[in-house]
Amino acid sequence: MHSVVEILSVGNELLLGNTVNTNAAWIASQVTSAGSEVGRMTTIGDNLGDISCALKESLRRHPDFLIITGGIGPTFDDMTLKGVAKGLGRRTRLNANAVRLIRSHYARRFKGRSLRLTKPRMKMARIPEGSVPLHNPVGTAPAVRLTLGRTQVFCLPGVPSEAKAIFLESILGRILTKARGRSYVERWLRISGLMESSLAPIIDRVMSHTPGIYIKSHPRGIENGRSHIELHFSTLAPSQSVGIQRVSKAVGEMKKELRARAVRVGRCTEAPWGASRVRSSV
Amino acid sequence: MHSVVEILSVGNELLLGNTVNTNAAWIASQVTSAGSEVGRMTTIGDNLGDISCALKESLRRHPDFLIITGGIGPTFDDMTLKGVAKGLGRRTRLNANAVRLIRSHYARRFKGRSLRLTKPRMKMARIPEGSVPLHNPVGTAPAVRLTLGRTQVFCLPGVPSEAKAIFLESILGRILTKARGRSYVERWLRISGLMESSLAPIIDRVMSHTPGIYIKSHPRGIENGRSHIELHFSTLAPSQSVGIQRVSKAVGEMKKELRARAVRVGRCTEAPWGASRVRSSV
Repeated sequence: MHSVVEILSVGNELLLGNTVNTNAAWIASQVTSAGSEVGRMTTIGDNLGDISCALKESLRRHPDFLIITGGIGPTFDDMTLKGVAKGLGRRTRLNANAVRLIRSHYARRFKGRSLRLTKPRMKMARIPEGSVPLHNPVGTAPAVRLTLGRTQVFCLPGVPSEAKAIFLESILGRILTKARGRSYVERWLRISGLMESSLAPIIDRVMSHTPGIYIKSHPRGIENGRSHIELHFSTLAPSQSVGIQRVSKAVGEMKKELRARAVRVGRCTEAPWGASRVRSSV
Repeated sequence: MHSVVEILSVGNELLLGNTVNTNAAWIASQVTSAGSEVGRMTTIGDNLGDISCALKESLRRHPDFLIITGGIGPTFDDMTLKGVAKGLGRRTRLNANAVRLIRSHYARRFKGRSLRLTKPRMKMARIPEGSVPLHNPVGTAPAVRLTLGRTQVFCLPGVPSEAKAIFLESILGRILTKARGRSYVERWLRISGLMESSLAPIIDRVMSHTPGIYIKSHPRGIENGRSHIELHFSTLAPSQSVGIQRVSKAVGEMKKELRARAVRVGRCTEAPWGASRVRSSV
């Protein structure tokens, strides 16, 4: 069984279409590279009912990790921690460690000058009962970790630099541990001169010869009457070497099939196997 | 009551983190500008069970519109239409109008040369019982429309140029009709020299004086020891003029409060009221 991650993004700005959800894509890319799978991404607004519902729905699907971003800051509409508590029938409580993290953040930032812990600042230290605050290396609001049955829940800030820093510091290691050496391997091939509908049976054939491989075609438009398609080969394998073997075999078979049809084949990207990956924003 | 839209994005590439979901943000921005609200965005992979579940979950929330993107093409993993049918306990059937749309697309593209309607090509004409195919002005696969109780469901291709063209041609008008003149108005203000936690009580005060206004703060980092924040004012009002009045009042009050604290206030963006909007990708 693969380990499964769900991502829940909280923020009206996402539903307004003012902000493109790059956080979810970044986290998904990290999770995939770490040998786990993202099962679902959900985006909801800043309101208690939706946060509590979405949390309960996700927990019913029993992912290994639920990563929530957004809504843990000092303003009135930062209500993720209250929403999570509501979903669990718990309360939020002032957490002494969270207060310490906030205090030391301000002390670092203002070089020792002490800052009054006003109500909005203390709000960031009120976390659901049974949860643990996590160090935020970039901003003020501590992140939060909770274990609920088999699911580890993390609440991160929505500010991308903060979400990324906390993910790398406190979450990635746990995901890698859970993946137990499974490796994601992918490769892209750019082809031109074949329509997606003509490619479909070839994909079926190559996939039937290379079990464990997933091949997805991404149409990238038509230029001078020629279709351009990017073909994505990927696998989640028990080890990196198995993954590389699988992908290489599939890519090789595909190239042979395509050349027999005089289709122009180009290497789209030669990302280093495994770790670093290629992102395309369409 | 506002009219509510849900967006369901189907595609493994989104869960892998290979593709940033700009489709959802673009649709959300259009929906918001048209005076409706996006209630939730969901992203799932290319598999029948997840598509059928996510459809049923969304229908239970009774949105006015459910816009699904991705998975209506010719390849094996394009299974949105089958998944939708499964969720409804219906079948997919070859639709004569859909066949006609596909035929005329190929005829246009290949200047009358007739193209054999192979199985993968015919697959795009198999749509859920009770649904209607919609013209795709850019690509091959027809979109699909279904009415289910109070919810109008649309299935669009995942290729952004196709999704956008069909949205503008066949969906936007229906959303505008349902919004009955309601108008979304927004404005941004850029401020520097105040932390978000110091801003929080000011936002509370201004919002309490200007009902119907939503003010959200977006921290944009710290430079030379000064916090930079973008403040977003928005409202969904019964008419554009009411919206403009509301937002102007709130922006005016906010400026007064901030200047009294010697905070530097800049006009971040002067988007034309209403229609055109400003997008920030963070």
